[in-house]
Amino acid sequence: MEGEPTRIMLAVNESTIKGYPHASISSRKAFEWTLQKIVRSNTSGFKLLFLHVQVPDEDGFDDMDSVYASPEDFKNLRNRDRARGLHLLEFFVERCHAIEVGCEAWIKKGDPKEVICHEVKRVRPDFLVVGCRGLGPFQRVFVGTVSEFCVKHAECPVITIKRSAEETPQDPVDD
Amino acid sequence: MEGEPTRIMLAVNESTIKGYPHASISSRKAFEWTLQKIVRSNTSGFKLLFLHVQVPDEDGFDDMDSVYASPEDFKNLRNRDRARGLHLLEFFVERCHAIEVGCEAWIKKGDPKEVICHEVKRVRPDFLVVGCRGLGPFQRVFVGTVSEFCVKHAECPVITIKRSAEETPQDPVDD
Repeated sequence: MEGEPTRIMLAVNESTIKGYPHASISSRKAFEWTLQKIVRSNTSGFKLLFLHVQVPDEDGFDDMDSVYASPEDFKNLRNRDRARGLHLLEFFVERCHAIEVGCEAWIKKGDPKEVICHEVKRVRPDFLVVGCRGLGPFQRVFVGTVSEFCVKHAECPVITIKRSAEETPQDPVDD
Repeated sequence: MEGEPTRIMLAVNESTIKGYPHASISSRKAFEWTLQKIVRSNTSGFKLLFLHVQVPDEDGFDDMDSVYASPEDFKNLRNRDRARGLHLLEFFVERCHAIEVGCEAWIKKGDPKEVICHEVKRVRPDFLVVGCRGLGPFQRVFVGTVSEFCVKHAECPVITIKRSAEETPQDPVDD
């Protein structure tokens, strides 16, 4: 017997091109990598903890065509966001269920890098896996990346999985 | 059947206080973490690749009391260094052998961070595990760390294992 499973937290997000409910290329890559290289056949030895952080839509750009006439409309909007996030997580949870790997999944709102580090502190996973779009040096200076922040600040070991060259769209921001 | 094992490279070094053949606290910590959290009971699913990088002794400070009278003396010195490195690796290889985890171990000379990244390129492990002394922010600025360099430059995923607080000696440089 092996004792408690190793608890791996995975931060997952939606595709920047396709939007919800599609998972980003880098999230799927990080997930598949974890299954292939770490979990392997030892499905009972690991538990995957999926965290999806939704960024509050401050400028409302996506909702330019919507009309808000009542408080109810805003509530519906929030429910719709929540449903989209759940749909994203469903992809990962279903894969785990199919191969019999234990998992949990949840949604938080906020700045992804801050929320991920906060959740690491709260949930105490054995380590954190984050995907990474592999931005060029120029973009990295201005954008920073969630993965770099987590490597520095998360209170657990962090492994960053970069997309391979053939998985990278021509515009590296696409995901 | 699982196919090829996951190949994990571990960079290991000697203790800065106790010297050879003692492995550093951070190397041992990274090794034990890898066994407990990744390999677990799936001993046939993983292969550990131990790399020890010896830093060439440029100032010869350690050899102040030695007298070199012939080319032979220098050859003996080099052999002694090599023997010390092998003795360090023996610790890790013996542990692996005892628990039946496949492994390989080898020594290279040079600047550890450069050599580790070069060996990653050559050997192509699935990921790299490096221990880290957890230097304070002040020391980090001047010293940089091998682990930070590898996270940025190694051509494979890298996971950095910090020592826990109770394993850290009072002077954080000690290891």
